[in-house]
Amino acid sequence: MALFVHKYGGTSVGSVERIKHVADNIIAARARGEDIVVVVSAMSGETNRLVALAKETQESPDPRELDVILSTGEQVTIGLLAMALKQKGCPAVSYTGLQVPIVTDEAHTKARIMDIGTERMRQDLDQGKVVVVAGFQGVTASNDITTLGRGGSDTTAVALAAALKADECLIYTDVDGVYTTDPRVEPKAQRLDRITFEEMLEMASLGSKVLQIRSVEFAGKYNVPLRVLSSFKGGGGTLISYEEENMEKPVISGIAFNRDEAKLTILGVPDRPGVASKILGPIAGANIEVDMIVQNVSQDSTTDFTFTVNRSDYPKALAILTETCRELGAREASGDDAIVKVSIVGVGMRSHAGIAAQMFETLAREGINILMISTSEIKISVVLKEKYLELAVRSLHEAFGLAGSGDHLG
Amino acid sequence: MALFVHKYGGTSVGSVERIKHVADNIIAARARGEDIVVVVSAMSGETNRLVALAKETQESPDPRELDVILSTGEQVTIGLLAMALKQKGCPAVSYTGLQVPIVTDEAHTKARIMDIGTERMRQDLDQGKVVVVAGFQGVTASNDITTLGRGGSDTTAVALAAALKADECLIYTDVDGVYTTDPRVEPKAQRLDRITFEEMLEMASLGSKVLQIRSVEFAGKYNVPLRVLSSFKGGGGTLISYEEENMEKPVISGIAFNRDEAKLTILGVPDRPGVASKILGPIAGANIEVDMIVQNVSQDSTTDFTFTVNRSDYPKALAILTETCRELGAREASGDDAIVKVSIVGVGMRSHAGIAAQMFETLAREGINILMISTSEIKISVVLKEKYLELAVRSLHEAFGLAGSGDHLG
Repeated sequence: MALFVHKYGGTSVGSVERIKHVADNIIAARARGEDIVVVVSAMSGETNRLVALAKETQESPDPRELDVILSTGEQVTIGLLAMALKQKGCPAVSYTGLQVPIVTDEAHTKARIMDIGTERMRQDLDQGKVVVVAGFQGVTASNDITTLGRGGSDTTAVALAAALKADECLIYTDVDGVYTTDPRVEPKAQRLDRITFEEMLEMASLGSKVLQIRSVEFAGKYNVPLRVLSSFKGGGGTLISYEEENMEKPVISGIAFNRDEAKLTILGVPDRPGVASKILGPIAGANIEVDMIVQNVSQDSTTDFTFTVNRSDYPKALAILTETCRELGAREASGDDAIVKVSIVGVGMRSHAGIAAQMFETLAREGINILMISTSEIKISVVLKEKYLELAVRSLHEAFGLAGSGDHLG
Repeated sequence: MALFVHKYGGTSVGSVERIKHVADNIIAARARGEDIVVVVSAMSGETNRLVALAKETQESPDPRELDVILSTGEQVTIGLLAMALKQKGCPAVSYTGLQVPIVTDEAHTKARIMDIGTERMRQDLDQGKVVVVAGFQGVTASNDITTLGRGGSDTTAVALAAALKADECLIYTDVDGVYTTDPRVEPKAQRLDRITFEEMLEMASLGSKVLQIRSVEFAGKYNVPLRVLSSFKGGGGTLISYEEENMEKPVISGIAFNRDEAKLTILGVPDRPGVASKILGPIAGANIEVDMIVQNVSQDSTTDFTFTVNRSDYPKALAILTETCRELGAREASGDDAIVKVSIVGVGMRSHAGIAAQMFETLAREGINILMISTSEIKISVVLKEKYLELAVRSLHEAFGLAGSGDHLG
């Protein structure tokens, strides 16, 4: 019998009415002869309410106790969904992360899954029950409750699908799939029927926030086919899987972008071994994540060094860099927080020369100046002034033949 | 080191501010050199909110799933209280019923405690931690979450005190102890410093709703001294323990009453063996609890039979009795739901003759007609017309020398 793992996010289970709608969706799938394991998030707003209570009680909430509190959000949803299914005559049983058990390490509020016990779920499935599991949570070897961190319910769903060797993991959300780019920027953006794990990772990390990146990595590692689809409208959504040999792939699958960037530069750094770590060490030490890094050697045996950080970290990063500039005897530290990153992503570019050239040419034709360039095997990213974002996305979308009719907005 | 179990109800932990106040109370006890295990209820209102969600989802909520949902209320409180203690520099750790574990039978929504694991709590106490335990909940042998039913947090506290051989179990509530009668009816009512388990059981079952009756039974069975006291005002509260031989006991400890009664009578029943079960069988079959039962034999070899039920069950009970009347060929079924029960309670009456006479005399002097009488070893109950309740309570309170100054109301 085919086994599917469904995952419904906080918006999809945001009220009793919506939970009943989810129950209908599950019952329809069972009527097609599918075995179903369901992972649910807390009802929307609930996690924020609990975090607020915790912060009111303790300035920096104790991580172990915070997990005790936060895990109740999903625990309420699993009980309600199991009830909604039973009300409609569908046998169902709920489990918390501790009960499954979903065994994690001890890193409270950002735990990693180590092992999943499948025995009890298998018994329930064999008895024809729908198994409802709390997302986002697990348990340590010493029986303490943990949570997996933001978006962790996606990770729970993929991990369960891997452990149960499910045929597919369906992530129900408020969008109906993965698009060639953000339809709010390019109305002609099209839903993709399929995308590879590698492409999805690049799209997700670049700001297409459909899926939590850890869950995509996890799905790729254990080869769990992932499908993103809407819990409100119908449609087949987007299937995320490995590239198939005989599949005619488009060169470029999508255009990703990230507005949330800032760029910092240190000029005239005396070029000695270890200079990069001297510059980035203090930044990392302040818990600031660095994204793109570009280094050029100038002629007078000094080097220029540019990197990007999340825009919210910009003031702190600039202060640190200014101090580093003084210590290293460099010429100048400066920055710009009105920049964006635009990337083209596609496994097809591996086998196609000239994609970079076509990208740069397209931007040049529109008079858009490129501030930084960074490339990987399946993506090319450029940093631009913020004001060029929409123009860049639309012209690249057009140039790489991604445009559809724009019907989905109707 | 002395070990105390504290229990704080929903009102005492009804807000973050109150939880911080509870933390202060615990820290003060620790400063006196006491080891503390704390049992808490859900924040007031939370259980009702969760029940409403469940009923909105399923007409008759599935008991197993209802327990999954309801248990989250206490789980939030334990996390918050542990945080509040840590914020004030007091080491603390929280456990759900499942984590302790508090092992129960499988009777969801009204489970009974079978066993308590004390190993982990002992380790924490040895390390100087305050142990915070979720009341009202447990876990079955097969790892399903259960709840103990209404007021179950008191039972949790007493059971923990018994398992840990605690010196005392302190039940913090919104009253400052057990009174000779309800101060809202008799302003001269006095707080009792001590009362025996047997007296407390009679007082509680008769409507002095300070403690859940099951927890008093439990405390008596395992000889756990129980103390009822206020979490808002100071004071030593009321200690509930076994009678001490050398203790000078008053004859009567208190006057209990219950407004929530209704009386039913079937007249002229042909008196055959088994007639009582023929009358009460259908009542019990409809899940109606019967309280007092009185049977008289009349001269024509028929019998009259009177019993009381909870007032909310009166219409159903009368309909059943009317049907039974027809079946048995009895003369008439009738009833009255404007009655109350008033009882005098005291272990002292065991050794004092004439207490009943003094009670009936007191009521007669006030012109109060007695409708039914029922006695046990340490209590005498009478059923009266509802309008006489206040007069009866006050005159008995005075007659048995229970009156204080009424200062506590100031």
